[in-house]
Amino acid sequence: MKFAVQCVRGKGARLGTLTDLGCHSNLTLETPMCMLYTRGGSAPYLGIDVLQRVQGTPAVVHMPLNMLAQFQEVITGFQAGMGKFSALGNQLIYASSHDPASETKSGKNDKHSIGVWGRGGKVQLDPEGFVKLQEAVQPDWFQSMADGDTDHSSTSKRCKKAVDRTLFFLDETLDRWKKSEKLQKSCMFGSIVGGFDARERKRCTLETVARNLDGYVIEGFHHYGPSTETFDLHGIADLIQSIMCHLPEDKPRVMHAVWRPDAVLQAVQLGVDIFDSSYPYIITERGLALVVDYNYNTPLDERPTQRETTGPTIDLNEKRFVDDFSPLLAECTCYTCKNYSRAYVNHLLNTGELLGRILLIMHNFEQYFGFFASIRQAMAENKFEQLQQLVNEQTGTT
Amino acid sequence: MKFAVQCVRGKGARLGTLTDLGCHSNLTLETPMCMLYTRGGSAPYLGIDVLQRVQGTPAVVHMPLNMLAQFQEVITGFQAGMGKFSALGNQLIYASSHDPASETKSGKNDKHSIGVWGRGGKVQLDPEGFVKLQEAVQPDWFQSMADGDTDHSSTSKRCKKAVDRTLFFLDETLDRWKKSEKLQKSCMFGSIVGGFDARERKRCTLETVARNLDGYVIEGFHHYGPSTETFDLHGIADLIQSIMCHLPEDKPRVMHAVWRPDAVLQAVQLGVDIFDSSYPYIITERGLALVVDYNYNTPLDERPTQRETTGPTIDLNEKRFVDDFSPLLAECTCYTCKNYSRAYVNHLLNTGELLGRILLIMHNFEQYFGFFASIRQAMAENKFEQLQQLVNEQTGTT
Repeated sequence: MKFAVQCVRGKGARLGTLTDLGCHSNLTLETPMCMLYTRGGSAPYLGIDVLQRVQGTPAVVHMPLNMLAQFQEVITGFQAGMGKFSALGNQLIYASSHDPASETKSGKNDKHSIGVWGRGGKVQLDPEGFVKLQEAVQPDWFQSMADGDTDHSSTSKRCKKAVDRTLFFLDETLDRWKKSEKLQKSCMFGSIVGGFDARERKRCTLETVARNLDGYVIEGFHHYGPSTETFDLHGIADLIQSIMCHLPEDKPRVMHAVWRPDAVLQAVQLGVDIFDSSYPYIITERGLALVVDYNYNTPLDERPTQRETTGPTIDLNEKRFVDDFSPLLAECTCYTCKNYSRAYVNHLLNTGELLGRILLIMHNFEQYFGFFASIRQAMAENKFEQLQQLVNEQTGTT
Repeated sequence: MKFAVQCVRGKGARLGTLTDLGCHSNLTLETPMCMLYTRGGSAPYLGIDVLQRVQGTPAVVHMPLNMLAQFQEVITGFQAGMGKFSALGNQLIYASSHDPASETKSGKNDKHSIGVWGRGGKVQLDPEGFVKLQEAVQPDWFQSMADGDTDHSSTSKRCKKAVDRTLFFLDETLDRWKKSEKLQKSCMFGSIVGGFDARERKRCTLETVARNLDGYVIEGFHHYGPSTETFDLHGIADLIQSIMCHLPEDKPRVMHAVWRPDAVLQAVQLGVDIFDSSYPYIITERGLALVVDYNYNTPLDERPTQRETTGPTIDLNEKRFVDDFSPLLAECTCYTCKNYSRAYVNHLLNTGELLGRILLIMHNFEQYFGFFASIRQAMAENKFEQLQQLVNEQTGTT
């Protein structure tokens, strides 16, 4: 896998390209990009055919391992990997250790293993078990084993322990990964942990970089889940920059969380290249539709003087949509907006019909994927600041 | 609307055609047929695009009124009818009073009105309210107001009251229907009630037939819901025949319930022409896949000697499917069987991912719709008995 930065905008926003993607060598991926969020191997609510109706669906499918660990025996038995098992055979697959949309439980990692949680309970993975699970899933890329069980309240001692364990896991995994026939074409992304402790973060970064991996996943700031939507990324900008400055420029960087569009732009500015799309899933679960206008080229005098919401979304559960027969978002060309109205989605949410969520996620995915295309375009046109200003105005971000 | 019987097989199974369908005059419908079961205006879990992937989807959409009554204000405000509101604008719509998949609560009808139940509670409809709701929904066909709140335990007095009320509602509704501009092109199907009381059933039938309606809905034997799957249709065959013999031959007859394939064939033999498709929905909710072989033309020696189930379905929740990588049903060409395995659907059901139900209902709908096509073909080829024997063998029906 090769990564090259095409240009840098603002303080550190990188427009990049990923090529030489192993089995998918015909692909060129542009960053900043998001991956397709999945649960149990599929996009939430969407079979492969419906997924094809969503414009701009990412080439990289993101599969959180924790939801697959319990089914390792089945996936192993299937032999052809998780992509084929879930009928996503031609997609590039990235396996993270945790599901960004679900809060991880604390205190489940130890010296020898990490705990991952699916619906049916906890699975404890040691380096051998971890590599075996990867061999069953057969991802193109995977995140290395990590103790990311830290947050703002973690002591220096806990942060040190997290780094010690993560580096131990890394070496144990590296060895097995290199010997594994099934993972010969898979790339490993090193996990950078260490909580809020700058010294430990630096140690982890330098040691991980020394192993010469294919990319990096920065974690250990929080325990994932819906609450990361309001996580103060701004407050740790210096800490993230102190990590980024030690990471090689020619390797991609991943961060997972439920990122609102304004947070995505902040993270892009900090040098993050790859994101997940758990945000459209989380807001769909709440009955919200993403309505952020990211058309930064629209002249100011053609923009609506008054927006109908003070945030990035509208809540289609609200009474005011009961008789609103307009599409979810006026300018949107997604399947849902072309065929259905706010009133009908409101009606489906009210009656508890799941079609409501299906229609919502199709809209929210398409808008979120389109937003990433817009970021890349804005960077190419050197208009990143315009885009950021436009988005921040709509999200109330300062 | 015109209905013509093409031929009668066995004791009373009718192969028929429906033509002159008002706004849908280009359509010719063949019976026995089933309608597309919907909830809140849409096929469960399926948007219109996905629905197009299901082979043989019926031309008639069945909308249970009880799920729409609470939203009358919204639908009225929309003005263009429920078909357009739910993006099914070009389909022929039939409105029944109740949802066959949900048990109705007893004791909610009175002299002046009937009670219908949606998610948000009860709505009481008098003849004026009933016709207004129909004007909002704008169905092509609708079932007349009825007191069908009777079952095997109802006294003669209760059955008489049911018929009295139903005939009163009928006359009150007839008058308003004929005066309604919005319902000028809509057809009304008269409801035949009277519980298990043969005298009351006959009275209701004769009085309803005297009103010269477009078709008939026979109800009042049970309170709908999943338990009707095991309702003993055989035991009331004489009673149903005593109703059928008074119904004009050139009008279609509807019966609603959660009909298994064997029960459908029994009902067809009793002279029922139109069915709903709540059965595939109900079994989908349970995680079951319909696996009845209805290819009656397959020579006996080419059929599997041993079937894997003793009923019409397999339960994909079962452990034995965890590593069964074959399609749901070997010969099935539905979207799900072409793309996914039993093991993957089992995995989705285990992880609680709704895609499992989406994939299941696509299979179950396609199989159920195909079964109805097979009934018509068998009747045309005078092989109804072969089909019935084949199905009964698989369902353990005697």
